[in-house]
Amino acid sequence: MNRTFRRGVSVAIVSGGALLMGAISHGARERGTIHGFTSGRTAEEEILEQKFRSIPDPGHVEADLRHLTSEPHLAGTEGSKRVAEWLQAQYQSYGFDAQIVSYSVWLAQPKQVKLELVAPQKQSLATQEEPIPEDKDTYDKRAVIGFNAYVPSADVTAPVVYVNYGTVEDYRILQSLGVSVEGKIVLARYGRCYRGIKTKLAEEHKAVGVIIYSDPSDDGYDAGDMFPRGPWRPMSGIQRGSVEYTQIYPGDPLTPGVAATPDAKRITPAEAPNLSRIPTLPINPQDGAAILSKLDGAHVPRNWQGGLPFTYHVGGGTAVAHMTIAMDYQQRPIYDVIAKLHGTSDDEWVVLGNHHDAWVFGAVDPSSGTATMLETARALGDLVRSGWKPKRTIVMCEWDAEEEGLIGSTEWVEQNRDELQAKAVAYINTDVGVAGPNLSASAVPSLKEFVRDATRDVPNPQSGSSVYETWRAHEAHATVEELGSARPTGQSDSSGETPISALGAGSDFCPFLDFAGIPSADVGFVGDYGVYHSLYDDFYWMKKFGDPEFKYHAALAKVLGTMTLRLDEADVLPFDYGAYAGEISRAVQEVQKRATEQGINAAEVKPLVEAAGQLSESAAKLSHALQSGGGLSIDPAAQTKMNRDLATIDQALLDPDGLHGRTWYKHTIYAPGSYAGYSAEVLPGPSEALDRKDAVAFEAESKSLTAALHRASAKLDEITKLSGK
Amino acid sequence: MNRTFRRGVSVAIVSGGALLMGAISHGARERGTIHGFTSGRTAEEEILEQKFRSIPDPGHVEADLRHLTSEPHLAGTEGSKRVAEWLQAQYQSYGFDAQIVSYSVWLAQPKQVKLELVAPQKQSLATQEEPIPEDKDTYDKRAVIGFNAYVPSADVTAPVVYVNYGTVEDYRILQSLGVSVEGKIVLARYGRCYRGIKTKLAEEHKAVGVIIYSDPSDDGYDAGDMFPRGPWRPMSGIQRGSVEYTQIYPGDPLTPGVAATPDAKRITPAEAPNLSRIPTLPINPQDGAAILSKLDGAHVPRNWQGGLPFTYHVGGGTAVAHMTIAMDYQQRPIYDVIAKLHGTSDDEWVVLGNHHDAWVFGAVDPSSGTATMLETARALGDLVRSGWKPKRTIVMCEWDAEEEGLIGSTEWVEQNRDELQAKAVAYINTDVGVAGPNLSASAVPSLKEFVRDATRDVPNPQSGSSVYETWRAHEAHATVEELGSARPTGQSDSSGETPISALGAGSDFCPFLDFAGIPSADVGFVGDYGVYHSLYDDFYWMKKFGDPEFKYHAALAKVLGTMTLRLDEADVLPFDYGAYAGEISRAVQEVQKRATEQGINAAEVKPLVEAAGQLSESAAKLSHALQSGGGLSIDPAAQTKMNRDLATIDQALLDPDGLHGRTWYKHTIYAPGSYAGYSAEVLPGPSEALDRKDAVAFEAESKSLTAALHRASAKLDEITKLSGK
Repeated sequence: MNRTFRRGVSVAIVSGGALLMGAISHGARERGTIHGFTSGRTAEEEILEQKFRSIPDPGHVEADLRHLTSEPHLAGTEGSKRVAEWLQAQYQSYGFDAQIVSYSVWLAQPKQVKLELVAPQKQSLATQEEPIPEDKDTYDKRAVIGFNAYVPSADVTAPVVYVNYGTVEDYRILQSLGVSVEGKIVLARYGRCYRGIKTKLAEEHKAVGVIIYSDPSDDGYDAGDMFPRGPWRPMSGIQRGSVEYTQIYPGDPLTPGVAATPDAKRITPAEAPNLSRIPTLPINPQDGAAILSKLDGAHVPRNWQGGLPFTYHVGGGTAVAHMTIAMDYQQRPIYDVIAKLHGTSDDEWVVLGNHHDAWVFGAVDPSSGTATMLETARALGDLVRSGWKPKRTIVMCEWDAEEEGLIGSTEWVEQNRDELQAKAVAYINTDVGVAGPNLSASAVPSLKEFVRDATRDVPNPQSGSSVYETWRAHEAHATVEELGSARPTGQSDSSGETPISALGAGSDFCPFLDFAGIPSADVGFVGDYGVYHSLYDDFYWMKKFGDPEFKYHAALAKVLGTMTLRLDEADVLPFDYGAYAGEISRAVQEVQKRATEQGINAAEVKPLVEAAGQLSESAAKLSHALQSGGGLSIDPAAQTKMNRDLATIDQALLDPDGLHGRTWYKHTIYAPGSYAGYSAEVLPGPSEALDRKDAVAFEAESKSLTAALHRASAKLDEITKLSGK
Repeated sequence: MNRTFRRGVSVAIVSGGALLMGAISHGARERGTIHGFTSGRTAEEEILEQKFRSIPDPGHVEADLRHLTSEPHLAGTEGSKRVAEWLQAQYQSYGFDAQIVSYSVWLAQPKQVKLELVAPQKQSLATQEEPIPEDKDTYDKRAVIGFNAYVPSADVTAPVVYVNYGTVEDYRILQSLGVSVEGKIVLARYGRCYRGIKTKLAEEHKAVGVIIYSDPSDDGYDAGDMFPRGPWRPMSGIQRGSVEYTQIYPGDPLTPGVAATPDAKRITPAEAPNLSRIPTLPINPQDGAAILSKLDGAHVPRNWQGGLPFTYHVGGGTAVAHMTIAMDYQQRPIYDVIAKLHGTSDDEWVVLGNHHDAWVFGAVDPSSGTATMLETARALGDLVRSGWKPKRTIVMCEWDAEEEGLIGSTEWVEQNRDELQAKAVAYINTDVGVAGPNLSASAVPSLKEFVRDATRDVPNPQSGSSVYETWRAHEAHATVEELGSARPTGQSDSSGETPISALGAGSDFCPFLDFAGIPSADVGFVGDYGVYHSLYDDFYWMKKFGDPEFKYHAALAKVLGTMTLRLDEADVLPFDYGAYAGEISRAVQEVQKRATEQGINAAEVKPLVEAAGQLSESAAKLSHALQSGGGLSIDPAAQTKMNRDLATIDQALLDPDGLHGRTWYKHTIYAPGSYAGYSAEVLPGPSEALDRKDAVAFEAESKSLTAALHRASAKLDEITKLSGK
């Protein structure tokens, strides 16, 4: 009742022309045209955006979030299917053409996990999350126990060695201490890198098992009060998560590169190179303490000491653990929802995406994103009902099984790559939509200023100034290391500009950018968030800590909608390839420097340096042409061709053969780091060849990259010609 | 028996001429003369030093340390008197003219301390240190309970506020959080600044009491394994210590500026400005946890979070503490030991000092220094017995009541200032003689290279290279913040040279340098040391962790002896005033910069800048003269006059009126920071005037400093003339 009433009100405002014009003149932009629009079209666009931004409503998002988090909805379960069906119905009710697309995926749930210390004393561990009396959802029996996805069933017993975060550097230090993990179970703390990298490195160092715990210094009591007193991880809170080696390829392990349709050709699990052969188990801080406090051996380096109340030791001797994991692997259905709002032209798509599956309730991750997507869709639907029709088709995607390894998005992109490459203008992702009040964004360089621009026109719910201004003020005061956010914050930018980081791994933009070359961005509000992937990431948490009034959800819907409407309506798509070429040039210089240090002949790097220079020149020419109005008043066919070319520069940067050792990854400029965690590797081919000190691979990868840069330059030159300037 | 045998052996070696010459040719210096010696005299000095350095014996020092730590010897107790009498006898047995000098000092021991939480629940605290079965000394009933010296008897009950380290900056942050400590008991953690500054600041902010606890992140389990498993502070370990406001004046509170002889004129305790009016009590980590875990209110800033296993809060509300302290103040005797080894001339003194009183057993602090001083004295005595006579008189001082506020040294310097100023060449201090393997030194700039030089000629016990080389290698790898050492490590030096810090507060060099202008240095070996001022700083700790083979004690005796013999025998005293002038110039530039920032007229700072320039010029001329052999071959009377002048530059830098608000401190270049803890304030007059933003005081202090620099310049010019170059 209340909800219907609210919706009625917003429609009334939207359709009330007089009211609207007043609102628009108040908010009129003072800095000229919107990028990609003529001045006349800018005024139209502003009216449209103002209409849009008047619609998102906190109460509405709150109700949607409450519904989405009312039961656990892990991928492959009935809960997840019910969410998909409900989402389809919602999108349909907003006027979208919404379909469920299903895939058959190799997936497991845990039948049993057991962990015990067998020495120095017997102690039963793998304790589960404790319910919280004031938060009834935490009593839900359907919540899955703590486990890591894509681990094998196993039964191992071995001494335990503490490896800090379990990074490449940590193993180097262990070696300097004379400690080997061969035949041992490693105990790593969460943080610093993707957990699948912890398992991969442990496997490479011949460990027989991995235990990952959450240290209170990272997202527990050292960061702040624990749930339910505060937003941080309580002593019983477990971070679930996948250890699929998505750095090799994401998606269904048995169908690399092709969609997991019922009749797809499948490899066997034993053949899948993105599956670990050793078990991994996540445990809570109190179990971590139980093991760590028993370790003997050398005293750890000072920065390996976490927040538990005793001196950490490396172990490897007295303390012995016994892990038993039984998984029930089978082909399971997953359910993506693909909702289209058809435009005047169905040949160009603006794609938005967010996953809907969750480890348990997933109030923050991903449901805050899902509820915000729905609110964005509702507002777009309202615009349509008030007479607007999109110029391009808006495709809103709700992915399943993101948590296990970006599966829903990967399979769909694998299935629809050709059409996406022909039609998609860009892909906008949100995942952790709202965990707090601080904007966080990642994007290809060509979209960074576009993202900032959208945030300039959305008011910040608390301060009254724009989202952009509070973002900038916050980042100026942010410390180097922000803890507890599910994804890394951007690198600070010496220019004083809001930092937007490179797209690494960890959410559904990955197949779009890295496999299909679709220009991508990712946005969300982050904050003090210590319940990541635990039972406690629920509605109660959000209402008490994350966004009690749901104002940031509404603000995010306005940001997403503003971006969508600009991409949808632009005469000339607002890509900035000057910025892209600049970042590539700086990265090439870095590669050149490192190559010289490794004694690689300067002549070998010269073609790459020249190609980067050429790209910068081509991009500068195009920027100049666009700044003087290029493309805005040319004939429609040329404009369409020009826009298509503008949207396909990232495709020019793909190498059809893919990267060394992980050919699924095609993008020559960005990939998730093979060992660098969630963050992106820039120029991954030559950079990782240098990491491996592999001069032969360096030569091959540099050639591929050089060719890609030349293709991009040529395309930029064509666009300049088409622009008529 | 064993001890006598060892002593016999070393004497035999010393008196064996042939053996000695072999040793000398092996160790012959390759870099020419020793600073301050002609080449002919260098050879003599080398033979003498080699003889000396062959004597110190680890077994001997160990036996002395075992004796010194066999019972508690707190100042004002019979234990301390017995140690003084034993030291006198030892020095006498080495051929020294050793006297006990007694003063009557206002001192208290605790009759009773009580601490309890009265809310949110009743809990009795102020738990004492637990005995350790394998360390029988820890069962000694004579050990004093945990208390802070110079606190008033008091009975207060108030809510508790956590103030982090309780520094000026911490109170600024508290204010920004809107928290006042007025009427509250503050809970501070040990570290960062002298505990007397914590109490002073709490008093200034109108707190009614102070509790200081040791946080495990500072010198407990986060630093490393706790005693008795490792060298760090166990959960029951208490850091005792004085809270006399020594930053105003050290020594007996009732006799500022004059010796505490029986008939001295005394002020009343109520008049003494260096006594706090509010009680302070030190507690152990487990009691700290009991209080901190009960605090509510705002969440602390991230860097206020220590190592205890919960989120720290500022408090001020629910948790209420009740402190009761009963002290038995009275006039008590203290006992310095002054031991002289008379030289050819009794008109020049080389003074060494170390305190002998301890909070409990004080194996590290100070007995490692005391045992080392004794070993140095024994070796000097052996040289005398083998026919050598010192050129200058060597005065070795064993101070009492250093722990309560540098009392023994301060009273003696106050009593003997005129004679010291007429005769003393330099004062070499050691206190924490050995807490580990890493050399640490502080000195006036004129003695820094002299200190380094001595360490170049002493082998490091472990590495075989010199103490100097291992010192340099260690500092190159040291992290910025070394925890757990009783005094701050030196600032790292961008030149790659071993860092030697400025002399601040915290040991007996303070009255020598700051009150009497005697050039001073302080040396010792530091390391992983978490039992500072606790019951556990005992022989067992030293034998297990600090210096199990007593090799570093022997090495320190060699360093002290080498320094002593060089100061004693030098033709021209080895002061480097170029270095001193350089440090003053840099500090003046810093003052000038800060003055400009505060809008102080450049003309006002100009005379000071010019005086610093003048000093640099005079110092450069003198350095040039000395480098070309100045002073080495002039007539003896001129050389004596020249040496006297060289030793009295720091006296020229004294301001007879003293510093603003603390006139006991006379030195214009160095003083303990009023609020900066143990570390030194450079150019304290103008610097602290700028801290207070007091332009009037700045003018006055700058004038005094300018005049001091001119006096020093004039004296340097005189020396240049005398040098004959």
